[in-house]
Amino acid sequence: MSVDLPRARTPAGTGERLQALVRELFPICRSITGDGVRETLAAVAERIPLDVHEVPTGAPVLDWTVPNEWNVRDAYIAKDGRRIVDFAESNLHLVNYSEPFRGKLSLEELRPRLHSLPEHPSWIPYRTSYYSPTWGFCLADEELRRLEEAEYEVVVDTTLAPGSLTYGECYLPGEREDEVLLTTHVCHPSLANDNLSGIAVLTELGALLQEARGSLSYRLLFIPGTIGSITWLARNKDQVDRIVAGLTLACVGDGAPLTYKRSRRGNATIDRAAEYTLPRVDERARFVDFIPWGWDERQFNSPGFNLPVGSLCRSREGEFTEYHSSADGLDFVRPEALEHALSSVVELLGVIDDERHYVNLAPEGEPQLGKRGLYPTVGGSAAEQEQIAMLWVLNLSDGCHSLLDIAERSQLPFELVREVALRLRDAGLLAERVEDRS
Amino acid sequence: MSVDLPRARTPAGTGERLQALVRELFPICRSITGDGVRETLAAVAERIPLDVHEVPTGAPVLDWTVPNEWNVRDAYIAKDGRRIVDFAESNLHLVNYSEPFRGKLSLEELRPRLHSLPEHPSWIPYRTSYYSPTWGFCLADEELRRLEEAEYEVVVDTTLAPGSLTYGECYLPGEREDEVLLTTHVCHPSLANDNLSGIAVLTELGALLQEARGSLSYRLLFIPGTIGSITWLARNKDQVDRIVAGLTLACVGDGAPLTYKRSRRGNATIDRAAEYTLPRVDERARFVDFIPWGWDERQFNSPGFNLPVGSLCRSREGEFTEYHSSADGLDFVRPEALEHALSSVVELLGVIDDERHYVNLAPEGEPQLGKRGLYPTVGGSAAEQEQIAMLWVLNLSDGCHSLLDIAERSQLPFELVREVALRLRDAGLLAERVEDRS
Amino acid sequence: MSVDLPRARTPAGTGERLQALVRELFPICRSITGDGVRETLAAVAERIPLDVHEVPTGAPVLDWTVPNEWNVRDAYIAKDGRRIVDFAESNLHLVNYSEPFRGKLSLEELRPRLHSLPEHPSWIPYRTSYYSPTWGFCLADEELRRLEEAEYEVVVDTTLAPGSLTYGECYLPGEREDEVLLTTHVCHPSLANDNLSGIAVLTELGALLQEARGSLSYRLLFIPGTIGSITWLARNKDQVDRIVAGLTLACVGDGAPLTYKRSRRGNATIDRAAEYTLPRVDERARFVDFIPWGWDERQFNSPGFNLPVGSLCRSREGEFTEYHSSADGLDFVRPEALEHALSSVVELLGVIDDERHYVNLAPEGEPQLGKRGLYPTVGGSAAEQEQIAMLWVLNLSDGCHSLLDIAERSQLPFELVREVALRLRDAGLLAERVEDRS
Repeated sequence: MSVDLPRARTPAGTGERLQALVRELFPICRSITGDGVRETLAAVAERIPLDVHEVPTGAPVLDWTVPNEWNVRDAYIAKDGRRIVDFAESNLHLVNYSEPFRGKLSLEELRPRLHSLPEHPSWIPYRTSYYSPTWGFCLADEELRRLEEAEYEVVVDTTLAPGSLTYGECYLPGEREDEVLLTTHVCHPSLANDNLSGIAVLTELGALLQEARGSLSYRLLFIPGTIGSITWLARNKDQVDRIVAGLTLACVGDGAPLTYKRSRRGNATIDRAAEYTLPRVDERARFVDFIPWGWDERQFNSPGFNLPVGSLCRSREGEFTEYHSSADGLDFVRPEALEHALSSVVELLGVIDDERHYVNLAPEGEPQLGKRGLYPTVGGSAAEQEQIAMLWVLNLSDGCHSLLDIAERSQLPFELVREVALRLRDAGLLAERVEDRS
Repeated sequence: MSVDLPRARTPAGTGERLQALVRELFPICRSITGDGVRETLAAVAERIPLDVHEVPTGAPVLDWTVPNEWNVRDAYIAKDGRRIVDFAESNLHLVNYSEPFRGKLSLEELRPRLHSLPEHPSWIPYRTSYYSPTWGFCLADEELRRLEEAEYEVVVDTTLAPGSLTYGECYLPGEREDEVLLTTHVCHPSLANDNLSGIAVLTELGALLQEARGSLSYRLLFIPGTIGSITWLARNKDQVDRIVAGLTLACVGDGAPLTYKRSRRGNATIDRAAEYTLPRVDERARFVDFIPWGWDERQFNSPGFNLPVGSLCRSREGEFTEYHSSADGLDFVRPEALEHALSSVVELLGVIDDERHYVNLAPEGEPQLGKRGLYPTVGGSAAEQEQIAMLWVLNLSDGCHSLLDIAERSQLPFELVREVALRLRDAGLLAERVEDRS
Repeated sequence: MSVDLPRARTPAGTGERLQALVRELFPICRSITGDGVRETLAAVAERIPLDVHEVPTGAPVLDWTVPNEWNVRDAYIAKDGRRIVDFAESNLHLVNYSEPFRGKLSLEELRPRLHSLPEHPSWIPYRTSYYSPTWGFCLADEELRRLEEAEYEVVVDTTLAPGSLTYGECYLPGEREDEVLLTTHVCHPSLANDNLSGIAVLTELGALLQEARGSLSYRLLFIPGTIGSITWLARNKDQVDRIVAGLTLACVGDGAPLTYKRSRRGNATIDRAAEYTLPRVDERARFVDFIPWGWDERQFNSPGFNLPVGSLCRSREGEFTEYHSSADGLDFVRPEALEHALSSVVELLGVIDDERHYVNLAPEGEPQLGKRGLYPTVGGSAAEQEQIAMLWVLNLSDGCHSLLDIAERSQLPFELVREVALRLRDAGLLAERVEDRS
């Protein structure tokens, strides 16, 4: 079967479709558990086949335990019967995972529960407290400063109780069991770049992959950060050795250049393919070595798994001023940035999907290409490049050099190297060496 | 036996002798087969012991087959009984390996058979068609433009028939069976730099090697390009593991700096010795990584053989404007360039011939040099350098470091390192480690 | 046991104490054997526990033999009954290891026995002749020039007779048998930097190490140069595999920056710890690759031992003008330079003593730090660094990366990495991997 991923381009209107999904999901209050995640996954499931998993509270997952499920009915601070901080206006107002509370507090009592960003007086910060039970509100610093001494009515009408952790999984089988793992975190409320951008791009990527099935299998995970990847790993420990490449996707909608963070291995196929592909689609593309913090790649790259999983973003976690605040709103994400991120991942996966090791079956001397009709019949520089590509592929196909190795060594385009390899294979001069390629 | 190669210098008059051989061989019409090759090898055989091999047409050689033998009696284009393009004037006029033809053609019919170089209107190009039967003529573009509409008489009085492929082999046995392979291509007609320069230098090198026998054995091949090395490899497959170093020689007579193309291995002894030696004999010396096109090194470096064979030239294949045209004539080649190429190869082979791994027989602490008379008796910087060289050789002679490694690490001259190693060996402090050194 | 070496600082008055020891030992006439060495070791033994070994003349030691012992009662050149060159004034006046002589000589006969430094007319050179029996005197060139034709009375009242070679050894056992070897040469007479500086610093280091016992064992050698290390190696061949790091110390009292000479291995723990530590204590710190001359490191790094022993000095052997002359006197050595050398070695040994490989016991995913109280309770950049350090240690503790590897990779301070590793170990998340660490 001819694999056509590298030539899959994004169809017309992709940028707008990505942005529309970001807009649709923006109002939902997501967290690491709860109905917001379910609602988000339902929207994804309208576009790609998605298995939605529910893992009950209390389930042991690696070194962790699935926490209580959190849901919000209402939350506000009122003064004189008037809501002055209201979850209904922005779900960022409530510290995520706040435990229930009802009471009347003086400003002095309330103050330690209020969070703002003095450097950005009009922005609402985003705060969470998943693992130490507390409650709190976030508000613009200019609002905070306006609060007067008074009695405030506080309502945190949440539930924090046994339930389950929810994640979505889309498995697209290919010709081989070897699979590519693609993940994005779905635990953030109304923040556009972090991470509706990742959710939108991964959803659309799933749709493209479904149409243009490749050689490898693809597994897309829509998971809450940290606890989600830990949960998935705990439930799939026996299958992770199928993963030959992986990528966590997040913050891909802003104006920064593409940024690839290497896997812990540093020279896995995904790392080398990224280094080959990304500078060709973004001349400002940046590369950083693995560090053990960031998104879910830190779990996949823990020493007990050490999976070949890199991470792709534009602005990095914490790198942009708007990060984790209301300023990461709908305007912060651009359709052309989303679309370019998507098409870049498609390019990258194309190289990984087509990556092969071939073995020259006539390795002693050069085989006579002319008698096999492999000598270019027309001249010109394209024919000459093709000829040179054949010589490189024949010379380096010793089982140790992959197509990507050959492209790097010869400085010829990967697609040309692959194309002549297929021709040489069809002429009986190459055979594929099948083995682990991570 | 004391090996004296590194100190072999080229005798007086070498440049002129090299040029004389180029002149003598220039008029002969060579090809990949035929009497021109035989005549050339006969001239070589007057100077060095040469086995001339004839391999019959049809013989299978690796993936190839020995082709029909080609010979030319006469070839011309005549108009009104007057020869206007004549093989007798320059053997470049006839497309090499042209099949027989006799006939009368209009200019329109003739035109597709005529080849010229519009950018260099007075030069005759050199063209071949070994593997697809056709015929044609090459002429100066200014001549081509002068041709008028007329009836042309065309005579290609060639034979293309079963016969044999001819190559010459000069084997100079040394103390060891390990051998150095030195080859040059003999298939080009009247082109001076490409490759009468190579033929002349290799012939003279053979004469020098015969006089100053080394430790290694030397095998010199005078072979038609591509099919010649393939034929030799096919007939000597079982012996190629004796080759510890090799070099293809071509285009060594022009004014460009020495250019060394590394073997596919990239760090074979020949590669390291070239990197050590050549900058010392030519400060402009250039180095390029292996690429799978060029001269016969591409066959020796095919993955099934992967022999430690580099390539030495001045201008590279195709790099000079005069390449493959009548402008690569006798004036293009300079006696001092030929002689310098020869003496450089002698230097290079000297290092390879003397390259050894020694093992320190008193490796615990430094041996006491004084009681063995190895401490310099006179002072001065030469004595100090000698002393330092002994310390380096003793310290690094652990079986893992060769003399060349020690010269590189210590930045001392190879000859000094070798000299003190011989003294330490004679004092019983070193023993040679014998093994594969390629 | 908590190991506190890295935080051991030099106590107040250390520089003065070091200088006092240099002053005390300065007048003694040392050589590779004899009473001067014994007297010197006796002074060292007042400060640290020292085993003094006597190895008899004639004892075979590796490739060498322990030489006759040399002692001096008196030596002078007199003219008209007046001593004009007198060993009692400076022990440099007598060529070290001069054999006995008594006689009357003309200036012409005497001249070949006299050594001076014409470039430095007021300095007395330091000369030795350990292994070829002779005698001679050293004097200032300006004195030499003043000598007139006359009869000179020469007295070399030395003994060169069977006796023994003396060296001192201070062994400070730690928790492990793995040991650090620290050596200095004690064979030079009245030369301050070379090497009373080394003797003083090693003595004081012994005193510090005795107080702040570490995890490793420490072995300090006070040995005559070359023959001393050879003798020790000959007598301790079976134990050298306990040595996980080592350092020869010399010339550490002058004003040059710290200079570390790598072990022959080049990447031993001592080398990597030096590269980590020294630039932090001396921004001008210099590093040089191993060369097979210098001080006793050349014996420890001979190929039959190949021990991980580097060398620390300020000015290198022969690098300073005053080297091996009376100008290397008490004024040439500075208390602050001695003290800084000492504290730098303490820092360096601290890293080596604390160097460990840990294995993450919860390697699948990140362990939940919060439930173990390992999450910082207060914020701020120190807490954040600590958090980041924990993530690095957990991620890289796969048995292949040591604490030093992690400090290098993360660019975090070694002490912080070590500190969080101990906390993680105490929390049951890490276990030490015990093995060879050289």
